[in-house]
Amino acid sequence: MSSLVKGIRRGMALVPLAAFGALGASAQEASEVSAYVDSSYLFLIGGLIVMFMAAGFCMLEAGLVRKKNAAMQSMKNVALFSVAGIMFWLVGYNMAYPGATIAGGWFGIPNFIWTPADDLGTGYASASDWFFQMVFVATAASIVSGTVAERVKLWPFLIFTAFLTAFIYPIVASWEWGGGALDSQFAFSDFAGSTLVHSTGGWAALVGAIIIGPRVGKFVNGEVHPMPGSNIPLAALGTFILWFGWFGFNGASQLAAGTFDDINAVAMIFANTNMAACGGVLAAMILTAILYKGKVDATMAFNGAIGGLVSITAEPLMPSMGLSILIGAIGGVLVVLTVPLLDKLKIDDVVGAIPAHLVCGIWGTMIVPLSHGGGFGIDTTDAATPSYLGQFIGVLACGIFVSIASAIVWMALKVTLGVRPSEEEELAGMDKSEVGLEAYPEFG
Amino acid sequence: MSSLVKGIRRGMALVPLAAFGALGASAQEASEVSAYVDSSYLFLIGGLIVMFMAAGFCMLEAGLVRKKNAAMQSMKNVALFSVAGIMFWLVGYNMAYPGATIAGGWFGIPNFIWTPADDLGTGYASASDWFFQMVFVATAASIVSGTVAERVKLWPFLIFTAFLTAFIYPIVASWEWGGGALDSQFAFSDFAGSTLVHSTGGWAALVGAIIIGPRVGKFVNGEVHPMPGSNIPLAALGTFILWFGWFGFNGASQLAAGTFDDINAVAMIFANTNMAACGGVLAAMILTAILYKGKVDATMAFNGAIGGLVSITAEPLMPSMGLSILIGAIGGVLVVLTVPLLDKLKIDDVVGAIPAHLVCGIWGTMIVPLSHGGGFGIDTTDAATPSYLGQFIGVLACGIFVSIASAIVWMALKVTLGVRPSEEEELAGMDKSEVGLEAYPEFG
Amino acid sequence: MSSLVKGIRRGMALVPLAAFGALGASAQEASEVSAYVDSSYLFLIGGLIVMFMAAGFCMLEAGLVRKKNAAMQSMKNVALFSVAGIMFWLVGYNMAYPGATIAGGWFGIPNFIWTPADDLGTGYASASDWFFQMVFVATAASIVSGTVAERVKLWPFLIFTAFLTAFIYPIVASWEWGGGALDSQFAFSDFAGSTLVHSTGGWAALVGAIIIGPRVGKFVNGEVHPMPGSNIPLAALGTFILWFGWFGFNGASQLAAGTFDDINAVAMIFANTNMAACGGVLAAMILTAILYKGKVDATMAFNGAIGGLVSITAEPLMPSMGLSILIGAIGGVLVVLTVPLLDKLKIDDVVGAIPAHLVCGIWGTMIVPLSHGGGFGIDTTDAATPSYLGQFIGVLACGIFVSIASAIVWMALKVTLGVRPSEEEELAGMDKSEVGLEAYPEFG
Repeated sequence: MSSLVKGIRRGMALVPLAAFGALGASAQEASEVSAYVDSSYLFLIGGLIVMFMAAGFCMLEAGLVRKKNAAMQSMKNVALFSVAGIMFWLVGYNMAYPGATIAGGWFGIPNFIWTPADDLGTGYASASDWFFQMVFVATAASIVSGTVAERVKLWPFLIFTAFLTAFIYPIVASWEWGGGALDSQFAFSDFAGSTLVHSTGGWAALVGAIIIGPRVGKFVNGEVHPMPGSNIPLAALGTFILWFGWFGFNGASQLAAGTFDDINAVAMIFANTNMAACGGVLAAMILTAILYKGKVDATMAFNGAIGGLVSITAEPLMPSMGLSILIGAIGGVLVVLTVPLLDKLKIDDVVGAIPAHLVCGIWGTMIVPLSHGGGFGIDTTDAATPSYLGQFIGVLACGIFVSIASAIVWMALKVTLGVRPSEEEELAGMDKSEVGLEAYPEFG
Repeated sequence: MSSLVKGIRRGMALVPLAAFGALGASAQEASEVSAYVDSSYLFLIGGLIVMFMAAGFCMLEAGLVRKKNAAMQSMKNVALFSVAGIMFWLVGYNMAYPGATIAGGWFGIPNFIWTPADDLGTGYASASDWFFQMVFVATAASIVSGTVAERVKLWPFLIFTAFLTAFIYPIVASWEWGGGALDSQFAFSDFAGSTLVHSTGGWAALVGAIIIGPRVGKFVNGEVHPMPGSNIPLAALGTFILWFGWFGFNGASQLAAGTFDDINAVAMIFANTNMAACGGVLAAMILTAILYKGKVDATMAFNGAIGGLVSITAEPLMPSMGLSILIGAIGGVLVVLTVPLLDKLKIDDVVGAIPAHLVCGIWGTMIVPLSHGGGFGIDTTDAATPSYLGQFIGVLACGIFVSIASAIVWMALKVTLGVRPSEEEELAGMDKSEVGLEAYPEFG
Repeated sequence: MSSLVKGIRRGMALVPLAAFGALGASAQEASEVSAYVDSSYLFLIGGLIVMFMAAGFCMLEAGLVRKKNAAMQSMKNVALFSVAGIMFWLVGYNMAYPGATIAGGWFGIPNFIWTPADDLGTGYASASDWFFQMVFVATAASIVSGTVAERVKLWPFLIFTAFLTAFIYPIVASWEWGGGALDSQFAFSDFAGSTLVHSTGGWAALVGAIIIGPRVGKFVNGEVHPMPGSNIPLAALGTFILWFGWFGFNGASQLAAGTFDDINAVAMIFANTNMAACGGVLAAMILTAILYKGKVDATMAFNGAIGGLVSITAEPLMPSMGLSILIGAIGGVLVVLTVPLLDKLKIDDVVGAIPAHLVCGIWGTMIVPLSHGGGFGIDTTDAATPSYLGQFIGVLACGIFVSIASAIVWMALKVTLGVRPSEEEELAGMDKSEVGLEAYPEFG
């Protein structure tokens, strides 16, 4: 989804039209319209499917929090999607795709308020692109929501979401998809956003978890107290919805579907995306069965699916299906190994979003050069191949920027509004203090 | 989606084909087939997404009723979708799109039993249109289901649904989409059905709620007894599914997607539909936070989304994205203000469907002229602009007809079969008396 | 979806291109690309929608098991989808579509590991076809999962799934869709898989239920002890998701959508599929109301929808909409009558999958000749019409082969790993013994 790649693809789509020369301008225009329609359709349907991932995150999180916070978590997911949409319209889109960049491609000058401007030459309806990009930013926000669940107040969380979706995510996206420094100088490659979307959400979540602190009672006297999720079938539903949505996330990131090569690519991305999820699930199941005396941890299996999906997101087209299974499986293993590590570090990640989105996002990004035949050093030729160093620089830049920016926002919120409810309110559950109703009022 | 607009669009789609004249009939036919395929695809995929709204209503309603009625409410939603499909095939479609109208375009002569008749000239597969129209009628029926929940017996409700989907909704739809009086005489404009679908469902629900009466114990000695929903995460899921489905509802109501202008319109509708929902959510959240001492009401936030979506449904194409947010936000405010008003009037609307669908449906319809530059008086030119008076006449006609027709059916059911269970049955929950099993038998 | 039919359709798609002769090769290629894109889109979107049926089965099953097994059932559904994907890549696809068959078309020689090979001449992206076929095999596996719920251990179940998806289902599919004996010798017709998918899953489930035995306490001293499902709203959600997914299952089985005839067919399939479900729901509701003293059984209504959908799957294109309602309604009746029959036979089918998928799968397959004007004896002409005898031979072959193959695998698992947990573990619930967490830990 880099601008470079986007340019190449657009060119390819136009190549067959040359053959129409003899038929005159009208036939060429008909073909251009046809490709324009196909690509816009791809963005709209892909975006719609990704939009539904908001429901997936909502179910996953509502299922994995305790029942006294399930209404709050449900409402937060509806609210964050609303904030993301408005901020990405007000600021975010034009921050991610600025007319010009300064500071060596690390910062763009935004125009506030996005407005549609349709032109046959761009290859797609402008609002279809806005919609498709917007659902990606909402995904990043959903990731944060899961990690900091059960102990952050509603409005501070939504203000953080506003900054994340207006500035933090769009600046990171501009480096690559907006044609900024990572794209132009480092040949960084992140097809659908293992780093740009998932790690960005993951870093913001990690910093938030550290600054906000763990839930009351989670870590006491050096012991970890498990706080099991209240509704596992809902978490399974959330997992399936995310899996479903990921076909839009990765598949539509091909950005065009009107040619032989493009539709073949979309199809291959579907197959590989699925295989990585399969690998993630089975690896997490087998590893937990080994580690936990034969018992398979269901939430690890669900996060294994998500970890596998995040892992393949940086490059879902080039690997073989076998390699996709392996990439996903390693993602599943990373999830199972990172969850207890966070506990040791006393970082309280309620739904396991940091392992699945941040750790697997880094993994998926770093393994991209393998299927491209890339080397260690950065390739500076025109048709640059992604390199391990270039990928690492992208991962690092994202980590440093998002961590610092998120820390500033979370700290500012902490010292002004405060981010946590009182201990009494937290123990009673945030449904009571923030939402004014209970998730399951008639269930014991 | 008016027949007038439909005619114009079909004309536009054919315009570029004129340029193919030199290529002979076969090239033109190929282009016509391509547009035919694109539009049929739009109806099928759009219809499929709208079909899924039935699941959204089911989850919203199952989540907002008390647990002793949740199985009944779930089954009612499956059943009403079945009744709607059969009645719309038997009578409804041909009632909405009659061959000829009498009584000045207020009543069409139906042919019973819809049968497919495919013709390249119509621009789409006939069954794709039937399917797309059918899921709209099911939406109207779902609205009624939520309002009259927890105290109406199964079969009387389904008989009402049969009348609503065979006659009441189709007659209203015929006035506009079938080329009847509202379309031909009043330049009434209702793009995807704020009035024709949502208000129709809302009026039928309101009249039903009045005739059936409130739930036992809801209004006692002038006091309102809250009966909170049993499963808020399911209600959140329902909200997200409805939001998802609304892109099909509004987007596919463009009716064509095979041209530059049409696909741009579909894309713009997606963006505006989303913004209105965002506005509705945030307005409802902010207003409840102000009214309820800092606590945000989660169910109001959910209904704010729906209210925002209903508000933009009458005209999702013309407004700017900023105006769409505002239209949706006012919808959200209307929801928050109307819910207590209904309580004061002792009208028991279990899920808040009357505020979200009827009130916002009226609001969305009345604001259409603003983005069209319409005036107060009815425009009688050929390319008529919607006017405030014309819109008001449409709202009024719908309200009068649906209220009277619904009242007749509900009253007839009341005096014959009876519409309510006994007080004992109602207090014990309708799962026991009507469904023969409990929704959550093992949960306390 | 038979290879014969596929060949015919591909031919039809190419017919209009002949008219382009005068325009030269480039115009013809553009048209071929357009049809290739349309058909690949159909497979990808259809496949995606069918993929979501995995979530539907998960919700249906999680809702219909007792709460002590709901986490296990949820995880099993995620796991079986993962196993199915990997095994169908490793073995299954190439088993179903072998290069050559031996033993008179009853057995193909597989190539292990499927790899993509895109060719404009095939008419669709190869990975789009793989993806579409893969979600069908997962459906068959989901059927088994529901029947044998609550008393089969995780790993033995997944090993059975591996055999089912690598060998058993693919061999059956090869007989028809792979151009094997049923297709070439018996003019067997099964459009989207009433027999090949649903009955295959159903036979495997039936044999599994017999070999594994009923749940502890289900049949005691000749009495049937009802074990009601724990979460009916989730079961309703599952039903709606399956209904939604079935439009992809049947609609995309038209295999092409780029021509006037193909898109009309897809549209007709959508309408008929919906009508059959409507018929199934209402027939099951009316019949249970008659049988159970006015009470309508909600789970029967849900299974009535599924039974109706399975019944129309063998031939969703040819019947009129009225006949589709009737075919679905008889499916609904069969569900209601078969559930108690299984109880009498002491066969414990937890979710009612055998009535809905096996019995209705047979019914739907046997009624195909009616709408084709087929007779009793097998038609041996080139454009063969399906006959009652040919259909019966297909049903019988599937039943015999799947039953024997499944029995061998289930028995082998029983005598080696063992398939059941200990009675104590089963009574405590498999969430504790297998998943290491509870589905609803805070709910009583």
